[in-house]
Order: sequence, then C-alpha cells, then structure tokens
Amino acid sequence: MLPEGYSIREVKASDHLPYLESLKVLTTVGEISKSQFEELVEYWKKNEVYHPHVVANEKDEVVATGMLLIERKAIHECGLVGHIEDISVAGHQQGKKLGYNMICTLAEKAKQAGCYKVILDCSPHNVEFYEKCGFKNDGTEMVKRF
Amino acid sequence: MLPEGYSIREVKASDHLPYLESLKVLTTVGEISKSQFEELVEYWKKNEVYHPHVVANEKDEVVATGMLLIERKAIHECGLVGHIEDISVAGHQQGKKLGYNMICTLAEKAKQAGCYKVILDCSPHNVEFYEKCGFKNDGTEMVKRF
Repeated sequence: MLPEGYSIREVKASDHLPYLESLKVLTTVGEISKSQFEELVEYWKKNEVYHPHVVANEKDEVVATGMLLIERKAIHECGLVGHIEDISVAGHQQGKKLGYNMICTLAEKAKQAGCYKVILDCSPHNVEFYEKCGFKNDGTEMVKRF
Repeated sequence: MLPEGYSIREVKASDHLPYLESLKVLTTVGEISKSQFEELVEYWKKNEVYHPHVVANEKDEVVATGMLLIERKAIHECGLVGHIEDISVAGHQQGKKLGYNMICTLAEKAKQAGCYKVILDCSPHNVEFYEKCGFKNDGTEMVKRF
C-alpha cells in the first residue's frame, strides 16, 4: 500500500525537475533542460516499447521513478518480455516502500500486457529486496562501457 | 573474422524458417507462421528501438541471430544503452566464432549509435565467453515468470 494521497501514474512532460531529482539517487543525470525532457517524454509516449511511471505524492509531485520496457521477441511464439529499468526513490522519501510498490505495479503491468516474464538487473546487495518482490536470481549481467 | 562468404546483415522478412531454426538452440520458439514472422520483422523495422541482425552464409541463409535494442534513458544526460538479446548459432554452425563475431558487431553498432554502454544477461557458464568479447560482470539478473 502506498502512503495516503500517493499514487503511481505515467510520467508527464511537466515532471521535469522532480523526475530528474529522484533519478540522481541512482547515478549521474547531468543537465537536462525542460525542452529536452519534454522531447524525451514525448518520444517515450510515441514509442510503444516504453512505459515510464512515477510515484507522485499528495501534491502530485514525483518522488520515485520506474521504467517498464516491453520487448517483442520471436522466441516463445512471438512472446513479450518486460524489462524494469531505473527504479529510483528520492532521498527524503525512503522507508515508505515506494520502490517495492513501483516494482509490484510494473510487474503487474507486464503481466497484464501479456509478457511471459519480467526481468531486471541489480547489484548483488539488492538481490534480497527483489526476492521480497517475488523475483528470483536468473543469471549474470555483463557490461561493456564506452 | 567470419568464414569466407559469410556476412552480418539485418534480418529480412524472407528469413522466416532459418531464423526460427537458429533460435531453437536457445529455447522454445513454437509455431510462427510466415505472415506472423513478416509482421514481426515489419514491426521491428518500424520501431527504432530494435536492431535485429543475422549471420548469413554464402547462400545468404541465416545461420545465427542477434538482437540489439537501443534504449533512450533520462540518466547520463539522456543517454543511450544497448541491450543484446537472443544470440543464437544454428547447431550445425557451432565452432566458427559466429557468436563471437555477432557480439562484437552488435557492441560496435551500439558504440557507433552513441550508447554509453551495452549490456546483456547470460548464464554463469557463459561469463567466460563474454569476457573474451570484452564484457565484465556487472550485476545480477532477476526474473519473475508468469
């Protein structure tokens, strides 16, 4: 359950600064202008792969983020796979289970969309948290950075 | 280096049966008709996230597959991340470094497209292979199946 007045909704172009502020707990965000953000949100909304969500507080301000990508594959009879990306909870909003609620909501959306599975990559120290969300260890993430 | 006469190219709607045959080394593919496959390839080509590739032999027949997804994020100044998916090599074509060549090609395409990293998920027993391709262990893949 989310705290009273909080809700999970799709991101809006007007979420600019609080959206980026929440993401800063994850990694470098850098300078992204209002118009750049609006263009990005517009792009996400036009492309059916992207399902960007936020937790909004009682003032409808973004306090957490979560992206669901829905990929169309050939395997599993043209199956769909959900990918969860960029789960962040603003620093002053920790401890309210916002991340847990976001994960459960995105996993449920993947299921409703017809995905046969939903996957995500995490640090080893977050495995226990995702197990509480009903996920299981399924492999190793490999990276090549440029 | 690919064997003489072999090349890496984008998938074509006419690759139907050999494309699916190659994927069968990975997992269940199921029944996918010619028209379903054509629709899927058309969908991939229209959506700029998808960059589906194949290795074709000297007769231009598919003998290996590899998908590159390019994701637009907000983090890292609206950065791009490449995701490598569904690398398969037809059973009778193993031992020719086709998988290795596909991985290197897709990673290079991700770099050329401006991605700051390219990632993939694999089984622990394939970690050593991907290390030879220049990848490093970066985390844990978690899954929820429906």
